Amino acid sequence: MDIGIIVVTHGNLADALKSTLFSIVGEKKNFESLSIPTNFTLETLCQNLDSIIKKLSTQYIVIFTDILGGSACNASIFLCKNYKNVYIISGVNLYMLIASIHLRENSSLNNIEEYVQKVIEEAKKSICCVNSIFKNKF
Amino acid sequence: MDIGIIVVTHGNLADALKSTLFSIVGEKKNFESLSIPTNFTLETLCQNLDSIIKKLSTQYIVIFTDILGGSACNASIFLCKNYKNVYIISGVNLYMLIASIHLRENSSLNNIEEYVQKVIEEAKKSICCVNSIFKNKF
Repeated sequence: MDIGIIVVTHGNLADALKSTLFSIVGEKKNFESLSIPTNFTLETLCQNLDSIIKKLSTQYIVIFTDILGGSACNASIFLCKNYKNVYIISGVNLYMLIASIHLRENSSLNNIEEYVQKVIEEAKKSICCVNSIFKNKF
Repeated sequence: MDIGIIVVTHGNLADALKSTLFSIVGEKKNFESLSIPTNFTLETLCQNLDSIIKKLSTQYIVIFTDILGGSACNASIFLCKNYKNVYIISGVNLYMLIASIHLRENSSLNNIEEYVQKVIEEAKKSICCVNSIFKNKF
């Protein structure tokens, strides 16, 4: 599927997620990050995010944000009203982004809604108590 | 509960998570980050992580790692063999850390296992398709 990805978060987390992801899976096209500085205004944030959305000429866009209800998420929700093809996922972690790339490149999913649900499913599966998996080894 | 927290990840993600977290909840004691450079060796990583574990004189330690099966996670598993009070959670995201602080300071949980499970539960809940929540607004 032709999906552009944007990671937008508080602080420098978005840039760190992108650089760490690229160190694992290699550099990817149509993948942008937007880290929000502490002295931001919601207006500037919306403008910057809108510029990135416009720059990506993909059929769909998925925005990955840090916290539901946080500034990054709220700006994304605000902008979504202007676009029919933008989806937002909260709670971004590294594995969610690895899955987003893998599924974008390799899956036979039929539509964007299936893609979003599969990315969420994979990200939730990545969260676990490691001790309980390896308890026989302790 | 008397819990020390360590975030350990590939790249500079751990430091970014810590600084972004502190910009939201304020600086916290007994909270350390360890970002793994690209040219690390597993031996050095284990030594650095072991030093942080020894420095934290808390009753329990919870290590938050990025990817199950990644270097950060594997070093944590290796070191766990030497400690009875260390727990590892994979799939770290920002909300997981916010929950870890909130539950450490405010909860009436009875034991460390309940704490770990509650943090995991909260982190999983933070992952969602935002569009579906606000679908009436689109």
